[in-house]
Amino acid sequence: MEIAYFNGQMLPKDEIKISPDDRGFLFADGVYEVVRWYEGFFYDMNSHTTRLKRSLRELRINWPGADSFQDIALNLIRINNLEKQQALVYLQVTRGVARRSHSFPFPEVPPTIYANAWKFIPDNNLKTTGIKVLLKEDIRWSRCDIKSVSLLPNVLSSQEACENGFKECVFSRNGFITEGSHSNIFFVIGGTLFTHPESNHILSGITRKNVLRIAQDCGIKVREEAVNENILKSVQEAFISNTTSEVLPVIEIGGYSLGDGVPGKVTKILLEKFNNEIQALKG
Amino acid sequence: MEIAYFNGQMLPKDEIKISPDDRGFLFADGVYEVVRWYEGFFYDMNSHTTRLKRSLRELRINWPGADSFQDIALNLIRINNLEKQQALVYLQVTRGVARRSHSFPFPEVPPTIYANAWKFIPDNNLKTTGIKVLLKEDIRWSRCDIKSVSLLPNVLSSQEACENGFKECVFSRNGFITEGSHSNIFFVIGGTLFTHPESNHILSGITRKNVLRIAQDCGIKVREEAVNENILKSVQEAFISNTTSEVLPVIEIGGYSLGDGVPGKVTKILLEKFNNEIQALKG
Repeated sequence: MEIAYFNGQMLPKDEIKISPDDRGFLFADGVYEVVRWYEGFFYDMNSHTTRLKRSLRELRINWPGADSFQDIALNLIRINNLEKQQALVYLQVTRGVARRSHSFPFPEVPPTIYANAWKFIPDNNLKTTGIKVLLKEDIRWSRCDIKSVSLLPNVLSSQEACENGFKECVFSRNGFITEGSHSNIFFVIGGTLFTHPESNHILSGITRKNVLRIAQDCGIKVREEAVNENILKSVQEAFISNTTSEVLPVIEIGGYSLGDGVPGKVTKILLEKFNNEIQALKG
Repeated sequence: MEIAYFNGQMLPKDEIKISPDDRGFLFADGVYEVVRWYEGFFYDMNSHTTRLKRSLRELRINWPGADSFQDIALNLIRINNLEKQQALVYLQVTRGVARRSHSFPFPEVPPTIYANAWKFIPDNNLKTTGIKVLLKEDIRWSRCDIKSVSLLPNVLSSQEACENGFKECVFSRNGFITEGSHSNIFFVIGGTLFTHPESNHILSGITRKNVLRIAQDCGIKVREEAVNENILKSVQEAFISNTTSEVLPVIEIGGYSLGDGVPGKVTKILLEKFNNEIQALKG
């Protein structure tokens, strides 16, 4: 039986009752995080907690217990017997339960905190073959830096990718490539690693940040600079990054085949270094 | 005790259990409608049902029972003893309950249908005094024509308006005024009534459509054309429209005082004609 966390309690997931007046349900008025458990540790939990707190601050959702994210996550791993597995923990915080009205509830109500954990089996084949990604206009709002549950555009573009045989949909805003529906994207052009700079148009990915650090550590030249669609033909390599996929080579984007249609050299180095870091943390 | 509708059943609202895996809660993957009950009838229920079906179609949410919206709404009015009151009925349809993954659940799952009704006491003073509205950049996504629950930007701007003493926040995209966070907006310039044309940047309001019809019927010149921010100083009158406020005069927008700071002539005509229509329907 799956046990989940709900407002301070560990409960059978089936017994959890989100109110129809929850602002997460009515207004997408909430934030979330996903952390990855590697058979014994969470990868960069600190950064996830910091980002969670930033998202909450940006939306002015007041959850004084945000620092307990790690404890909640660890308890979920233990109570669901996932310690020796690979797993994911999902946490969502909404502005709470109140009679429907666009503006914040007044007086303030306690936030809703929900979290669950599940066994995760990574598809490592994709790391060898690489993936093809769809390229679409970025029609999302202008606060993509907040990790909110206002994810309908991401859902629609993910579905479109999926139905057309792509593993991800990458967005382009005013001709510049921003990020994927649930990943960041990197390009290698003339040996330099490019990715969109932090801004209101992308989510500051934890894996993105760690990949940038690893790249710099091994002497790869890095430029946090948006890549224009019209130079895709001069791109040698690309990959996406996120918590669940880590580093995932891209071999085609928007109809352009990249390099030789196989994962590129720089991509493979970063993939290996990332794996090494995980192995080292396993100790 | 408030009775609400949930997936085919009438239940005490407190007993309704939205799953934490509901795609409305996790992804804002759902649509909604609000209809108004005037002590005996719903105003333009047909248009609300038609719009609901369009929203569902755009998101490819499959609810074969969408035509039962009116029956559900009427049952809620009766069961909650609201027949002789003014009331609102809220209906929300989400893509249903499934393990979290951005793309649509496969195989498909049944949608979640939730609806409730409550007594509504309109604040008619505001129709006499008019309201001041905040003007902000439109940072929403580019499918505002879908009445989805992906409402976080609307929540944030509504709250900002509210905290600064405004009754609504109106948006401007690339200099052109689109609509409010939960209303459409109309302007009177040189005797002509202007409002943003139907497009992906506004919701096609039911009251908007009826106001346009009423205006044409009484010989007011109508232009469905976006108004640029920089001609706000030449605007004589403005008002917002939606299901709950009907026609609500605006006396200030983005710092510009309109006309003489009181509801304008054309606005008052439309407000009166709208009221007459409601009275006539009461029979």
